[in-house]
Amino acid sequence: MRTAIIEGDGIGKEVIPEAVAILDYFNETYDWGIEKVPVEVGFGKWERTGSAITDDDISLLKSCDAILFGAITTVSDPSYKSVLLRIRKELDLYANIRPLLPIPGIYKLLKIKDRKESDVDIVIVRENTEGLYSGIEELGDEKSTTTRVITKIASERIASFASNLAAERKNYLTVVHKSNVLKSDKLFLETCKETAESKGVNVSNKLVDIFAYDLIMNPEKYDVVVTTNLFGDILSDLGAALLGSIGLAPSANIGDSQAFFEPVHGSAPDIAGKGIANPIAAILSLKMMFEWMGKTREACLVNRAVAAAVHDKIITPDLGGKYSTKEVGDFILSKV
Amino acid sequence: MRTAIIEGDGIGKEVIPEAVAILDYFNETYDWGIEKVPVEVGFGKWERTGSAITDDDISLLKSCDAILFGAITTVSDPSYKSVLLRIRKELDLYANIRPLLPIPGIYKLLKIKDRKESDVDIVIVRENTEGLYSGIEELGDEKSTTTRVITKIASERIASFASNLAAERKNYLTVVHKSNVLKSDKLFLETCKETAESKGVNVSNKLVDIFAYDLIMNPEKYDVVVTTNLFGDILSDLGAALLGSIGLAPSANIGDSQAFFEPVHGSAPDIAGKGIANPIAAILSLKMMFEWMGKTREACLVNRAVAAAVHDKIITPDLGGKYSTKEVGDFILSKV
Ligand SMILES: CC(C)[C@H](C(=O)O)[C@@H](O)C(=O)O
Ligand SMILES: CC(C)[C@H](C(=O)O)[C@@H](O)C(=O)O
Repeated sequence: MRTAIIEGDGIGKEVIPEAVAILDYFNETYDWGIEKVPVEVGFGKWERTGSAITDDDISLLKSCDAILFGAITTVSDPSYKSVLLRIRKELDLYANIRPLLPIPGIYKLLKIKDRKESDVDIVIVRENTEGLYSGIEELGDEKSTTTRVITKIASERIASFASNLAAERKNYLTVVHKSNVLKSDKLFLETCKETAESKGVNVSNKLVDIFAYDLIMNPEKYDVVVTTNLFGDILSDLGAALLGSIGLAPSANIGDSQAFFEPVHGSAPDIAGKGIANPIAAILSLKMMFEWMGKTREACLVNRAVAAAVHDKIITPDLGGKYSTKEVGDFILSKV
Repeated sequence: MRTAIIEGDGIGKEVIPEAVAILDYFNETYDWGIEKVPVEVGFGKWERTGSAITDDDISLLKSCDAILFGAITTVSDPSYKSVLLRIRKELDLYANIRPLLPIPGIYKLLKIKDRKESDVDIVIVRENTEGLYSGIEELGDEKSTTTRVITKIASERIASFASNLAAERKNYLTVVHKSNVLKSDKLFLETCKETAESKGVNVSNKLVDIFAYDLIMNPEKYDVVVTTNLFGDILSDLGAALLGSIGLAPSANIGDSQAFFEPVHGSAPDIAGKGIANPIAAILSLKMMFEWMGKTREACLVNRAVAAAVHDKIITPDLGGKYSTKEVGDFILSKV
């Protein structure tokens, strides 16, 4: 198996090495035969070469099975196109997965009292190829439009993915949409319902506006949630509030044969270079890679080691600790 | 001044009379000369006549200055068009305003500990005429599209409204957008920035995904927020979490010469007819009407009377009380 390693920019360069150290440990101890392929893409490369990611980089990534990704700085310069979006598209990584499962002990650490950790165990499954990310736009000085595209085929594919996931969990799927206003969402909603029902999964649905409220107020009501691209973008960032901090959120972009794992946080230029970035989201993204590989036991070990860091307060300043990225990474490695 | 009174369906018929009793009190005591115009629209009318709102109803509404509205049941039958959207459009009520200001004492009552009431004082200003609500759709069995429309003229108008509001408050405006992906949002963002700056208002901006997270995590950072139609729809429901309950959220839809005031909650068929619906959101919507009329002192009196109901626990079951809609309404009336 070939795994591309993209550190990217800013704190990506600091957190990914901590995740890689854990990958190396398992790879060597259990002879997994993973070949690491370092790939350099991002803003730094754009500054140097004028191109944030080349066709060769894409070919290289296509030749890998998995990708572990740090963070990339995005600038508003219109000639700078999002590397993330290009990779998702070219590799057809159609399912964007964001689990909302708090690290045991984190609510106590962060003094969160209004909800219970045990009430939060949700997976947001975001359609990752169309919707408002179609790229179909007409831009003008007086008027600009973007076309939101919903297709039956993409809706079926994501609904099928989400239903399979639901079947492994509580067999309960919530479809989030806005079909009372966007008639195009009827296609999404109906397709999701049919697909889930054909797989024997219990399905209900919720309008996106009230779902956003309910996700925060009553998270215990939800298990697997499937939604369109931009709604998933908004709701999964929002859902990170249930984790206590967006700095703790991992994610996966999954296709039929490849997958891409990344912490949700960005490159954080303000703290980059100080060695204080929190490596936990990157390490939990590696854990998602282990799950994807079927290495459930190892994924559990990583989970437990992260919980131990929180329990023993071996944590970075963002969580109120005094340890460095490397110290936290080393501690977690020592516990796996 | 003519004020249309639309009770609508379900609990709309129970909460609006409580707000109207307060309106009557001020109108009679201070001789405001408000003429009330009852207008019947909604699902009940649709069932009886096949039409939820007629052209005559629209003409009647156009002849009024303000509209006080309860709630309307929406059904998924495609021949049933949203009454709310039609009124907003025909009356060109371009600014949808949702203040997020908790009732004093409500956090204590609801045992909310993770944030402070004094940290929350935000107004969400939602563009109410275009964006994904354009109605431009192509529907098919395999593919459906909706066109998201951003115009300079509508962006300017809403930015101007939001900037004027900001100037009366902390002079600080946040523009919420997704211009890193939707290039059409560049037009919205740039127009809002220019408009705010031309009015001397401090302006910053935030991507909608991270804003949703930050609104819940750090509400004290925000004052007036301006955004496009569907983002405003989602964020304002979400923001109701900061009020403790969506059942407490009032709203206004404002145009150049007319305005429409409504509680955010729906017709709640499950509790309709029991006399236990919470009238506070309807009464706070009336309060927004008083503000719009320039009756600031009376608006304050209503605010104080509502806070007294919360303080004395004269509240409906949704807030843990044992009083009826009418008892709560009577109490608030007795305190104004
Ligand atoms: C960086 C941006 C293009 C991206 C998105 O909008 O999908 C990000 O917000 C995400 O959620 O991965
Ligand atoms: C009922 C629906 C059409 C409406 C909207 O989407 O605008 C509602 O959610 C609102 O926020 O007023």
